[in-house]
Amino acid sequence: MTDYTIRRARRDDVAAIVRMLADDQLGATRDDPGDLEPYLRAFDDIDADRNQFLMVVASGDEPVGTLQLTIIPGLARRGALRGQIEAVRIRADHRGSGLGADFVRWAIDESRRRGCALVQLTSDVTRTEAHRFYERLGFTPSHMGFKLKL
Amino acid sequence: MTDYTIRRARRDDVAAIVRMLADDQLGATRDDPGDLEPYLRAFDDIDADRNQFLMVVASGDEPVGTLQLTIIPGLARRGALRGQIEAVRIRADHRGSGLGADFVRWAIDESRRRGCALVQLTSDVTRTEAHRFYERLGFTPSHMGFKLKL
Repeated sequence: MTDYTIRRARRDDVAAIVRMLADDQLGATRDDPGDLEPYLRAFDDIDADRNQFLMVVASGDEPVGTLQLTIIPGLARRGALRGQIEAVRIRADHRGSGLGADFVRWAIDESRRRGCALVQLTSDVTRTEAHRFYERLGFTPSHMGFKLKL
Repeated sequence: MTDYTIRRARRDDVAAIVRMLADDQLGATRDDPGDLEPYLRAFDDIDADRNQFLMVVASGDEPVGTLQLTIIPGLARRGALRGQIEAVRIRADHRGSGLGADFVRWAIDESRRRGCALVQLTSDVTRTEAHRFYERLGFTPSHMGFKLKL
């Protein structure tokens, strides 16, 4: 990862992040980089929350990957913190070089530094390649993930 | 639910909540009500976080069920908030009366009131009864849930 930098996302990265969310088999119908207003509002919420880490991996200064790490306090497992990873994307032209694995490993290490006992994430059942990717990184597919749209 | 009240957990509910977490096929090896100190520290963290709602359902004033609702801001889905439900437990002697369904419906309604576009949760693959319970409440088992212990 000689020319990649992992850093917190800035407000002026939001357009690039939304393009990555929309350029995806499942995100294409859900996200629209044409109107950034709701995304910028959400960015401000995320940025103000000390348990949220919206990250980018940048080539030079340009975001080519993104993920969000959330630190969740809870009572279970003797009051353990857990790290939760969401919205992992690597831009198509930067895939296949191990960048995604390095980025997720960063999130695992950051969770450990913050005292988490566990890292968790969910992946759509149709993303079988992603499942193999997470298993190679040491994750166990121990849970079913349920969603309910409101 | 005539004699049940859903309310935020208080510090003096922590012992009762931990007993419910430990009285469980999977939690029994992970939680220990004998030493409350780490749980009380975690309670203070949860209680200070405006996106965390540690709830109990009480019979009279005695907690007989618990869940934690976390509101997570994100960029995906046009900057949608999501509600995440964790650590749902109903004390054995209060099961089978629909209390759990009412409690989870409360969490769904609260997520809606707070502007969430989605409610999500994971359930251990071995808890097949719980899976049917969530499907009856309208949840879709659309994801695999991955965990990595640190």
